[in-house]
Amino acid sequence: MSLTQLTQRQIDEYHENGFLMLDSLLDSTEVELLRDAFRRDCEVPGPHLVAEQDGSRVRAVYASHHRQREFAALIRDSRVLTPVRQLLTDDVYVYQFKINAKPAFGGEKWAWHQDFLAWRIADGLPAPRQVNIGVYLDAVTEFNGPVIFLPGSHRGGLVREDRAAGARSEQHLDPDDISLTADQLASYADRFGMVSPKGPAGSVVLFSPEIVHGSAPNMSPFPRRLLIATYNDCANLPQGPREPRPEYVVCRDSEPLAPLEGPLSGALTGVSA
Amino acid sequence: MSLTQLTQRQIDEYHENGFLMLDSLLDSTEVELLRDAFRRDCEVPGPHLVAEQDGSRVRAVYASHHRQREFAALIRDSRVLTPVRQLLTDDVYVYQFKINAKPAFGGEKWAWHQDFLAWRIADGLPAPRQVNIGVYLDAVTEFNGPVIFLPGSHRGGLVREDRAAGARSEQHLDPDDISLTADQLASYADRFGMVSPKGPAGSVVLFSPEIVHGSAPNMSPFPRRLLIATYNDCANLPQGPREPRPEYVVCRDSEPLAPLEGPLSGALTGVSA
Repeated sequence: MSLTQLTQRQIDEYHENGFLMLDSLLDSTEVELLRDAFRRDCEVPGPHLVAEQDGSRVRAVYASHHRQREFAALIRDSRVLTPVRQLLTDDVYVYQFKINAKPAFGGEKWAWHQDFLAWRIADGLPAPRQVNIGVYLDAVTEFNGPVIFLPGSHRGGLVREDRAAGARSEQHLDPDDISLTADQLASYADRFGMVSPKGPAGSVVLFSPEIVHGSAPNMSPFPRRLLIATYNDCANLPQGPREPRPEYVVCRDSEPLAPLEGPLSGALTGVSA
Repeated sequence: MSLTQLTQRQIDEYHENGFLMLDSLLDSTEVELLRDAFRRDCEVPGPHLVAEQDGSRVRAVYASHHRQREFAALIRDSRVLTPVRQLLTDDVYVYQFKINAKPAFGGEKWAWHQDFLAWRIADGLPAPRQVNIGVYLDAVTEFNGPVIFLPGSHRGGLVREDRAAGARSEQHLDPDDISLTADQLASYADRFGMVSPKGPAGSVVLFSPEIVHGSAPNMSPFPRRLLIATYNDCANLPQGPREPRPEYVVCRDSEPLAPLEGPLSGALTGVSA
């Protein structure tokens, strides 16, 4: 068995809870490489850069793996790709890639939602055949706006079926538009509880496209950068009847990814973005 | 030694960290009494009721101990009053009493600040001779907007000396008007770290008027009610040169309080608000 494979116990835990935490999967050198690549990518102008509501700071960047080879290497890295293939299927590609930069003293909160509802509505994604990876580019603590999961909430399917009337956003499908109602969340929180996986930078959390999650604002004076890549089953391509969203939001290259072994820095020589 | 006295170790901890947590000091029957009294008090109209910015929900209620005898008994209860007298001086009175009701799904955050700066500016309070008690009317978790302290940050005195230009509020002195700058907080957070005491309903946290603290919004679907009473040294009365704030914000009765022994429910027969 490869060292990068999940144990059966970890696989069971993922399916039971809807998420699985892998502490310190990347080392500090690798984290520094990724942070540098993110800084460079924030300097690349274009619609893939999303600002905070006050306009002054970056809230999210999409599709950095198309522009920075460090991220192209990361999504193929066996330590993340092998677990994703174990949880989903051998043939997967990256459907969406984004880095949420939750700035110090704020960073808006993300409303309680299920990712798959957004993707079904916006892209006509047929089935919840995805696995997300959340890569901690900064340590995540209780104070800097961690993602909060309702463990097990993925097992009941979609809680709501459509988006809010008067939706705020078209392209990015703001979580506010698809959030659970107060009653729905109260019932789910009672039933499932809440958990927010903390960990040092370099930790990776795998999570289901159907798990109910949200996150609080960042109360700390330090930024909190979280990379989220969504792998989709190559046999589950979007079938939207409408104009597809731009490629930086919904990646078109659905060739199956092959795992790269070894440290991220070593892999860089063989990868281009 | 009375059972309600703090140990020397607890006293040292308070002075070292600027706060001290007393888990489950009140029992569930007592908590229920206080919740009922709070519900009743929210029905009493007047300027002591402060609404959330959206206007629909109660954000804070002041001076409930003037209207509800449960709170009049609480502030005299030996389990809180004896520790306060140990930490401050024998002759104390309640200078301010409020209940912050942080509603489900929101409840605005409170900016990082030091209480004593507010009281010095608004009321001419001469010295930081106060002890706050925070009484948890609901369990406090990492998800429902707990108060966050920078432990030890009270030992350096006031970080800033005055309020912001263009202050938002006159009477209630919004923490946003007296908040630390980003640089100040970054330096303090690096030096002191952050701690947020969690606990079941009925827990009480004692904290210094000079400790830097803030709190996040409530991400949970359940309310979080926190009672804060501020005891002041009877020899440290406000000496404001300006028109004093209303009595519901700054209590005028500075007679020293005498401790009441026994459970809150038993004390009610001998107390009026």
